[in-house]
Amino acid sequence: MLTFQKYFPLEDTPENKSIMQSAMAVVKEEMQSNQIGYYKLPSNSLSLIERLKEIDSDLFTQIIIIGIGGSSLGIKAIDSILRPYTPNAKEILYFENSDPVTISETLIKIKKEKAAFFIISKSGSTIETTSILKTVIATCKLDLDGADRKRVFAITDKDSALSKFAQHHNLGEFNIPDNVGGRFSVLSAVGVVPLQMAGYDVKNILKGAQEFITRFFEEGETHLLEKACYMYINSKKQGINVLFSYADHLEGLTKWYVQLWGESLGKIDFNGNRVGLTPIGLIGSVDQHSFLELIIEGPHDKSVTFISIKDAGNDLKIPDISLYGIEKTNFINNQSFNTLINAQCDATMQSVIESDVAVDAISFDKVTPENIGAIIIYYELLTSLMGAMLMINTYDQPGVELGKQILYKNLEKH
Amino acid sequence: MLTFQKYFPLEDTPENKSIMQSAMAVVKEEMQSNQIGYYKLPSNSLSLIERLKEIDSDLFTQIIIIGIGGSSLGIKAIDSILRPYTPNAKEILYFENSDPVTISETLIKIKKEKAAFFIISKSGSTIETTSILKTVIATCKLDLDGADRKRVFAITDKDSALSKFAQHHNLGEFNIPDNVGGRFSVLSAVGVVPLQMAGYDVKNILKGAQEFITRFFEEGETHLLEKACYMYINSKKQGINVLFSYADHLEGLTKWYVQLWGESLGKIDFNGNRVGLTPIGLIGSVDQHSFLELIIEGPHDKSVTFISIKDAGNDLKIPDISLYGIEKTNFINNQSFNTLINAQCDATMQSVIESDVAVDAISFDKVTPENIGAIIIYYELLTSLMGAMLMINTYDQPGVELGKQILYKNLEKH
Repeated sequence: MLTFQKYFPLEDTPENKSIMQSAMAVVKEEMQSNQIGYYKLPSNSLSLIERLKEIDSDLFTQIIIIGIGGSSLGIKAIDSILRPYTPNAKEILYFENSDPVTISETLIKIKKEKAAFFIISKSGSTIETTSILKTVIATCKLDLDGADRKRVFAITDKDSALSKFAQHHNLGEFNIPDNVGGRFSVLSAVGVVPLQMAGYDVKNILKGAQEFITRFFEEGETHLLEKACYMYINSKKQGINVLFSYADHLEGLTKWYVQLWGESLGKIDFNGNRVGLTPIGLIGSVDQHSFLELIIEGPHDKSVTFISIKDAGNDLKIPDISLYGIEKTNFINNQSFNTLINAQCDATMQSVIESDVAVDAISFDKVTPENIGAIIIYYELLTSLMGAMLMINTYDQPGVELGKQILYKNLEKH
Repeated sequence: MLTFQKYFPLEDTPENKSIMQSAMAVVKEEMQSNQIGYYKLPSNSLSLIERLKEIDSDLFTQIIIIGIGGSSLGIKAIDSILRPYTPNAKEILYFENSDPVTISETLIKIKKEKAAFFIISKSGSTIETTSILKTVIATCKLDLDGADRKRVFAITDKDSALSKFAQHHNLGEFNIPDNVGGRFSVLSAVGVVPLQMAGYDVKNILKGAQEFITRFFEEGETHLLEKACYMYINSKKQGINVLFSYADHLEGLTKWYVQLWGESLGKIDFNGNRVGLTPIGLIGSVDQHSFLELIIEGPHDKSVTFISIKDAGNDLKIPDISLYGIEKTNFINNQSFNTLINAQCDATMQSVIESDVAVDAISFDKVTPENIGAIIIYYELLTSLMGAMLMINTYDQPGVELGKQILYKNLEKH
């Protein structure tokens, strides 16, 4: 279960009600018209799990992900947070970046005979992904028309370049629905197929997502609309949202959120104005020692969302030892680290609230697949609501095209 | 060698000259008066390397760091970027956070008989550090008055609680100068001792730092003053600085920069105004797929610093393979990934410049200890100059005290 608390003021005015009603109407229309597809992934993706039963996944003990951005961040987020709670999860290697140092480091970890390779690209021709694919084929001597055909899978749009490649070699292929953008795709084949094959309980991730989205459309999660409304009406003076997660293994989720938020909401709106909120992901308590000072004493241009895990399922305790000279820390002896990190989250949150910064809090009762599904759909819905309020196209990314054109031009000249 | 380029306009006015001269005077005074100590670390810390010769470092093949914030971020930054170029570097384990899951995961990796433990805390009573210290003592059954005395080292302020503990057990102790703050301490014993023992070429890190700082005070690195001045005079409308590093292993450096910048510059100034610049660390090309859209199309409230490595010392090539369906990517065949990632950095930078965002670029000719030393001192000097211009105390962190008080109160009641 997720619990949501808000510590910011939202006035109960007709204007705010109207903002929320309009955004809700936009989101409902996106969903009902099938213009935007992610809303239906929690139910539609169940069929992928069925389809995977036809593949003998015991053949594979290592999962290789070749994908970047929306084709890796969501998988990494879920893998990272669920791994400590999934002792039999298979190893996953990620090839994301065009950095030769990390590509070389990852290549030597591949155990070809045990590996399932997932090439993931919505467009099918992402330059990092196709370049790494070629490198992996050459390094591992993959025989795509023979013995290795069964271990290579493409996850891509129907009729994409990568789809043509997969069909040519008769590889396993899974498609991303046309109406699902890369950064909203984690609950499509992009995340479902490799995570299920790695041994994660994807069915319950989808269940948690479905339950949340059902409650939302039945207007049982009104806090989401209120948060979007608060953030929208304050977006000029509080242009930064900090996601402060109190668990190391939530770092992947914060990176996924940064992409979702940044790429969806940083836009020129329908009136030609530049809008957007800047997302920042932090990890507590570590970043109390690096960023908290700025939040409290610096310009009040930020809202802060705290995420904590009430019961991390680990009872490691601070031993009852008194160390000479350091006796003043004895008050914490015999407490669990779980208690300490939650107390740190609470204390930091309280100090930020007392400094008049807008705060809200999301608490996991524990780490479960259902809760992970819920938090994912929560952030996707929040993003769609914000986009509707900001009057932008939440789902495109026109700003990144110029760089791609320059890259192609420069490299072709090379 | 580092190369610096700026693509933002700075007018050659008497006002700007005066801002730069005043800030330079403040920094010179801080250095000459010994009020601020980090300026002299590159020369003063050489004696630590001498002192370490008395310790038989061959006894240890694993380095354990117990520290958080300024007591770990700098070590991690240097370890991470130099490791691919230092094949014999010893394994380093980090205990940073109070997260029970990662503490448990790290505890089982300790090889006690081969390990050197560094307890690092400037104040000597950081709650995460002392709690983990107790846990490590209990789990590894460290005999602090017997056989294990030689493998435990304290790095802390003179006369701190941790120093008393070390002296009581006659442990190895290294002190952080009083006039060096935690986030400026990486070139003090904090970084020098564990990194030298891990097998890194610390002498040349210090050399690179010393050469840079010498040139700076001889006014041979004027670009630094100009950048600080530009950022200062535009700090209200461009309140965010993005550090976009094109190498996975630079992520540690971006996190170190976020602490240095955020905790130093987010302050209430001498006139009672809230000032500060928000630091964001990104990794290219990955974050082109997550954050670039916001930089280009969103509010122009950011400046962007690109870091690239001209020659990463890795000639991994994209194989000359034509893949059915994906032939349009063949133009990149036979190029190195080193060429690709640099071309991506250049293209992205050009697209950001063309979108009228303030940009500057730092280029490493290659990854060397000297260059790492130089980039560290570069960012420390930039922070000091900005702090002088913003008229704040760059070196304290009053804003984090409230949270600590609340934590202690809440936990003691517990």
